[in-house]
Amino acid sequence: MITPLRARDELDGPGLERLVEHILAGGVSGLFILGTTGEGPSLSYRLRKELIERTCRQVKGRVPVLVAITDTAFVESVNIARWSADAGADAVVLAPPYYLPEGQPELQEYLDHLVPELPLPLFLYNMPALTKVTFELETVRRAMDNPRIIGLKDSSGNMIYFHRAVGLLKHRPDWTLLVGPEEMLADAVFAGGHGGVNGGANFHPRLYVELFRAAQAGDTARVRELHAQVMHISDNLYRIGRHSSAIIKGIKCALSLLSVCDDFMAEPFHRFREPERARVQQLLSEIGLLK
Amino acid sequence: MITPLRARDELDGPGLERLVEHILAGGVSGLFILGTTGEGPSLSYRLRKELIERTCRQVKGRVPVLVAITDTAFVESVNIARWSADAGADAVVLAPPYYLPEGQPELQEYLDHLVPELPLPLFLYNMPALTKVTFELETVRRAMDNPRIIGLKDSSGNMIYFHRAVGLLKHRPDWTLLVGPEEMLADAVFAGGHGGVNGGANFHPRLYVELFRAAQAGDTARVRELHAQVMHISDNLYRIGRHSSAIIKGIKCALSLLSVCDDFMAEPFHRFREPERARVQQLLSEIGLLK
Amino acid sequence: MITPLRARDELDGPGLERLVEHILAGGVSGLFILGTTGEGPSLSYRLRKELIERTCRQVKGRVPVLVAITDTAFVESVNIARWSADAGADAVVLAPPYYLPEGQPELQEYLDHLVPELPLPLFLYNMPALTKVTFELETVRRAMDNPRIIGLKDSSGNMIYFHRAVGLLKHRPDWTLLVGPEEMLADAVFAGGHGGVNGGANFHPRLYVELFRAAQAGDTARVRELHAQVMHISDNLYRIGRHSSAIIKGIKCALSLLSVCDDFMAEPFHRFREPERARVQQLLSEIGLLK
Amino acid sequence: MITPLRARDELDGPGLERLVEHILAGGVSGLFILGTTGEGPSLSYRLRKELIERTCRQVKGRVPVLVAITDTAFVESVNIARWSADAGADAVVLAPPYYLPEGQPELQEYLDHLVPELPLPLFLYNMPALTKVTFELETVRRAMDNPRIIGLKDSSGNMIYFHRAVGLLKHRPDWTLLVGPEEMLADAVFAGGHGGVNGGANFHPRLYVELFRAAQAGDTARVRELHAQVMHISDNLYRIGRHSSAIIKGIKCALSLLSVCDDFMAEPFHRFREPERARVQQLLSEIGLLK
Repeated sequence: MITPLRARDELDGPGLERLVEHILAGGVSGLFILGTTGEGPSLSYRLRKELIERTCRQVKGRVPVLVAITDTAFVESVNIARWSADAGADAVVLAPPYYLPEGQPELQEYLDHLVPELPLPLFLYNMPALTKVTFELETVRRAMDNPRIIGLKDSSGNMIYFHRAVGLLKHRPDWTLLVGPEEMLADAVFAGGHGGVNGGANFHPRLYVELFRAAQAGDTARVRELHAQVMHISDNLYRIGRHSSAIIKGIKCALSLLSVCDDFMAEPFHRFREPERARVQQLLSEIGLLK
Repeated sequence: MITPLRARDELDGPGLERLVEHILAGGVSGLFILGTTGEGPSLSYRLRKELIERTCRQVKGRVPVLVAITDTAFVESVNIARWSADAGADAVVLAPPYYLPEGQPELQEYLDHLVPELPLPLFLYNMPALTKVTFELETVRRAMDNPRIIGLKDSSGNMIYFHRAVGLLKHRPDWTLLVGPEEMLADAVFAGGHGGVNGGANFHPRLYVELFRAAQAGDTARVRELHAQVMHISDNLYRIGRHSSAIIKGIKCALSLLSVCDDFMAEPFHRFREPERARVQQLLSEIGLLK
Repeated sequence: MITPLRARDELDGPGLERLVEHILAGGVSGLFILGTTGEGPSLSYRLRKELIERTCRQVKGRVPVLVAITDTAFVESVNIARWSADAGADAVVLAPPYYLPEGQPELQEYLDHLVPELPLPLFLYNMPALTKVTFELETVRRAMDNPRIIGLKDSSGNMIYFHRAVGLLKHRPDWTLLVGPEEMLADAVFAGGHGGVNGGANFHPRLYVELFRAAQAGDTARVRELHAQVMHISDNLYRIGRHSSAIIKGIKCALSLLSVCDDFMAEPFHRFREPERARVQQLLSEIGLLK
Repeated sequence: MITPLRARDELDGPGLERLVEHILAGGVSGLFILGTTGEGPSLSYRLRKELIERTCRQVKGRVPVLVAITDTAFVESVNIARWSADAGADAVVLAPPYYLPEGQPELQEYLDHLVPELPLPLFLYNMPALTKVTFELETVRRAMDNPRIIGLKDSSGNMIYFHRAVGLLKHRPDWTLLVGPEEMLADAVFAGGHGGVNGGANFHPRLYVELFRAAQAGDTARVRELHAQVMHISDNLYRIGRHSSAIIKGIKCALSLLSVCDDFMAEPFHRFREPERARVQQLLSEIGLLK
């Protein structure tokens, strides 16, 4: 889930309420907040706490809420996890500390130290393009020995890694394996994964839910049709602008055009201006979300 | 300056006092705290605030104190800058936000927005290996138009970049250009830079001060002799262990062996164990700091 | 196809004959020689010519033979293409020149100049980990306007790229899109690709042929079963040794154990020694290729 | 030295003669041909042989001629070395094979196998940006045990690496350590290196020779003055165009404007067009090489 902002360090509260309802109406199975698309690292801790509380209050237990606690500072990760538990969230999600790169033994020891401090179960979050450090599969395998670590979200975009992660599931039948990039949602389900954490579900949740269900049901014809829509969105919405923030900008712009919430972005990024906005509007018309 | 820690989220207060005196006794011209070697991003905000206050109190204006405010969240950078000003620090230091990479135009706009919020003048900090984003020289050139931005610390290790940064000095005669890696201190001064921010000065400040002065005086014979000592430390102290945190571990271990302060490290890193400690001890004997 | 060698700059001729028969007996649809797994760039031109001629003579038109002409020197690529045509090969395959990286406009112009010199139709070969340069999809799209360019082999391992390449097929219904990594063969076929160029088919061709057919038929149960075998090979055979040549070493070692051909490797690589060989033997037993 | 070309696979013979004389008249201590700036990997073997022979014939022993034998195929490296010896060259120069990356032990074994096949002494050439593989300093140290390996050219741009390479000189007093990037020539000499292999010396040899001599003499005032000219060339000539071939294009364009030789480039690159050519002309006027 993106984080609706009205201005610097200011939540768009009504937008947040509409966004949660918009996404839940689409049938999603859970909400993941403060991740990459949620601009988590760009937000003040005060605002992160507010977002956690407001989101949990709005969701009211209808679906699980997962909260990213990725941080370069151990203590701050623990703090966010505590706020999450207090607010009624269901699990927390952690990518490796991302300033000074650590080795895998250090990452393993870090998990050993961190997990006992967390009041909620933990998902690992593999995002090497941004953290510089991969959760190598040997580290994932070892984490599976800890029952408080319950799953992995893989946003590497590396399909071989994902297949190898599927191969580890035999060690933990209760483990949840999710994929980040929505272009790989069907592949991930075919491969034996359990679902996706897909940014496009912010503005078009039903599409990704239906694609997930079609893949799960093995309905390959329907998968092709829905996947083609996902690729159309990816090719047109996420490649406006050259920088890595283009996906978030595109999603926020779409939500603004759909009158769901504001498209203000935390620094150092800014919302799309015209003519990017016009291109998003055209895409939303093409896919039937705007008349 | 490293950050002396006694335990997780706990400063080594007496160690900090001894460390500041140890460094100042070596003749350094300033202190830079909460940078990469200072484990800034790994520390809780509470502890960063405490470190800023205690360091400024200990220094009592004898040399300028510079504080890193690098953060992925704009608002938190501003907060650290305010604590720094309140504590009596002299300037703040900023590397680019380091989770989601931004383009140079975004980085420029970010500076345009941030600098007016800062109560202290700003140094740029180029550290692409860790932030993924370079302060490209066109961005530095543009930053020079803002009189509140007063210098650049370059830790890229890229000598061509440094020479080009020297070439920009004609646009701002008051600008300060410093180099990060101590192996390049003499090169930087010969090239027209103004000094170094060198981790080794934590435990052996006089060596780096003397090297700086010899380079500034053009005393090439003395430079060769002192630089050989710097390389001996670099080759032996900073290459124990395979990971990028090896430099900090080595410096902290040396300080512990010199009875200056504790060598506890913030997660996900940990202090050297035996036999690394024995190797550091041997080095300190070789260079005459330990008998 | 790997290149069977007996010694430096010396083909293992009888091994080559057995290898071609071994692979064709497995039901493959074509042979690709002198690619990455074929150690193409490591071989002398004389030996490459010999391999092309002997392979074509052995295949005798039973399946198409594709020959990699990737080279840093334009003229040498043309030479290899001419030998290929003279020997009766069916197409040539080209990755970008891989010493000095070129921009996409330069790569496009390069194709414009090269294709008219080639006596055979051309496949593009996307292998950015080794060439440093990607065939960006805009360049592929543009190449589709040239009827002499007839397909793309994608070895990037990037599933999103592959999906986007599938999306381009509407512009060229006759285009052939193949995937490199065998771990992604089923994904690629489900996604709309036409097959794989998979190293494992050197020693176990039937497995990959059957996986391809099961995927094409939409037989997901069979795909899971066969794909699990592919992953078992990948996890055990291709991860012996730390270096990027481990896949080729593993395949050659397996072929040696199966008495198909010698496992000599061109410099700077060398064959597996004991105990790696023992591990390969164990794997071959596990998958039923050795008793 | 760049390679003067008149057309695809065609040397500019008279241009080559003028170029050799132009460079030697500038006082250089040696010629290095077929390296990165010489477009070595982009040239056919036939043309490389021709260039080696013509260059040696033109130089007639007035300075040593070094020839790059870097190749992905062991046998071809040996061939080029033999042509070089036959033509009267003095040494050969080798970067690591650059398609499939090898580990350091493989690189060491490769040197062990290659050197006995070479009829001339060998320089190592560290160019990791293009070869993907570094000559790590442990490998250089080990190479020093072989008296047939006589030096290292470092084009990494990494000043710390260079300092560490200087530190190895004590093991081989006869070793020659040269730097690639001309922006670092003075730094390298101050650091204890023996000189540079600098592309700019193609069109302005005297500048680099004088800078070398001033650095060697410790004449820092003169170094600053000449180094400023080197940086002016670097900032203006080597940054026209965005791609990594810009340096070669700039040098060839300058030589064409000075009527020394043709500026044709081997594929996939092409010569500067207007208006880049106009900018080069302006630079040459500024530095007094053109009226």
